[in-house]
Amino acid sequence: MNKGILVVISGFSGAGKGTVVKKLLEKSDDYCLSVSMTTRSPRPGEVDGKDYFFVTKEKFEQTIAENGLIEHAQFVGNYYGTPRAYVEQRLEEGKNVILEIEIQGAMNIKKLYPEAVLLFITPPTAEELEKRLKGRGTETDEVIAGRLSRASEESVGIGEYDYIVVNDDLDKCVQDVMDTINTAKRQPARVGGFIDELRKGLEKYHK
Amino acid sequence: MNKGILVVISGFSGAGKGTVVKKLLEKSDDYCLSVSMTTRSPRPGEVDGKDYFFVTKEKFEQTIAENGLIEHAQFVGNYYGTPRAYVEQRLEEGKNVILEIEIQGAMNIKKLYPEAVLLFITPPTAEELEKRLKGRGTETDEVIAGRLSRASEESVGIGEYDYIVVNDDLDKCVQDVMDTINTAKRQPARVGGFIDELRKGLEKYHK
Repeated sequence: MNKGILVVISGFSGAGKGTVVKKLLEKSDDYCLSVSMTTRSPRPGEVDGKDYFFVTKEKFEQTIAENGLIEHAQFVGNYYGTPRAYVEQRLEEGKNVILEIEIQGAMNIKKLYPEAVLLFITPPTAEELEKRLKGRGTETDEVIAGRLSRASEESVGIGEYDYIVVNDDLDKCVQDVMDTINTAKRQPARVGGFIDELRKGLEKYHK
Repeated sequence: MNKGILVVISGFSGAGKGTVVKKLLEKSDDYCLSVSMTTRSPRPGEVDGKDYFFVTKEKFEQTIAENGLIEHAQFVGNYYGTPRAYVEQRLEEGKNVILEIEIQGAMNIKKLYPEAVLLFITPPTAEELEKRLKGRGTETDEVIAGRLSRASEESVGIGEYDYIVVNDDLDKCVQDVMDTINTAKRQPARVGGFIDELRKGLEKYHK
């Protein structure tokens, strides 16, 4: 069985990346979502080991000390991180593991896992992003303005991603993400074992 | 309309790349095959401008002098080359232009057209390649041995290609080639214009 691939999915707030990931997980058993570890308290309905691994601050810091997290950050007084063991176990099982993280975390992952595939999901235009954020109808103008300003800052770094996937039509975007991941697996850096086998197999014919 | 993409398809003799290209052209109008220029005489049934552009030695050398060929080579006393004007015109029309060439030519194309996508088509194993070459039943053992020896030499360089596509099942391979080309178009180096537009559009929201 082939190992799975680590897939980083980022995107502007409002790009619809959460929906894309949800659809992707529904559509194919080849994917699973990385479950984060956190020190914050579970909200009603949240399940330990599914939504998050809920741990104490001591346990979290011990995990950091043991190099047990791929990346971690603090946010509003709580820790959040990506457990290494969980990710690597699922990859070994052949699952493509999705990390839904932001650009800085994405770049760190790329350094640690050069074979990871980094996707950035974006609406087709800036105007469409604004339209979607306003269309939610759940946020104040100020919050929306903040998200758009942040998108402007993030847009500077998107050239560092491996692939830019436009989310215009949701179903097409999900299919594009799947095709992109399958295609990334055909890059020589990710099929080194296959190439080695092939070369070795051909050697005996060499005159 | 978006410009097309230059697609280089290489593969071991016997990998089935000719069949893959033929199927691809049947399946989609988005692709066309580059028509080579040659000084050799047309064979019965060959059509000028379809199979080749048939020209005199003087015309060919004049075309070289005018920088009218992307690449060219001599083979058994005749010239063969890829006309620049034809390729660039079809790319402008939005067609993906396929060049079926060998590894050395492929690397030259990559230097001249960094945005080209280089695909290498291979059977799943060395044994399968041997089986296919023998299965044709049209060549002597000596010729087959020569092809396999050559495949062994070529295998050293396949890591330089952008994507390795395995031809196990023909229809799947054709689909994989199409998905690969569409995915390659999502790499930042090939969507620079789109990224620039997006950044420019987001700038006005920056606080």
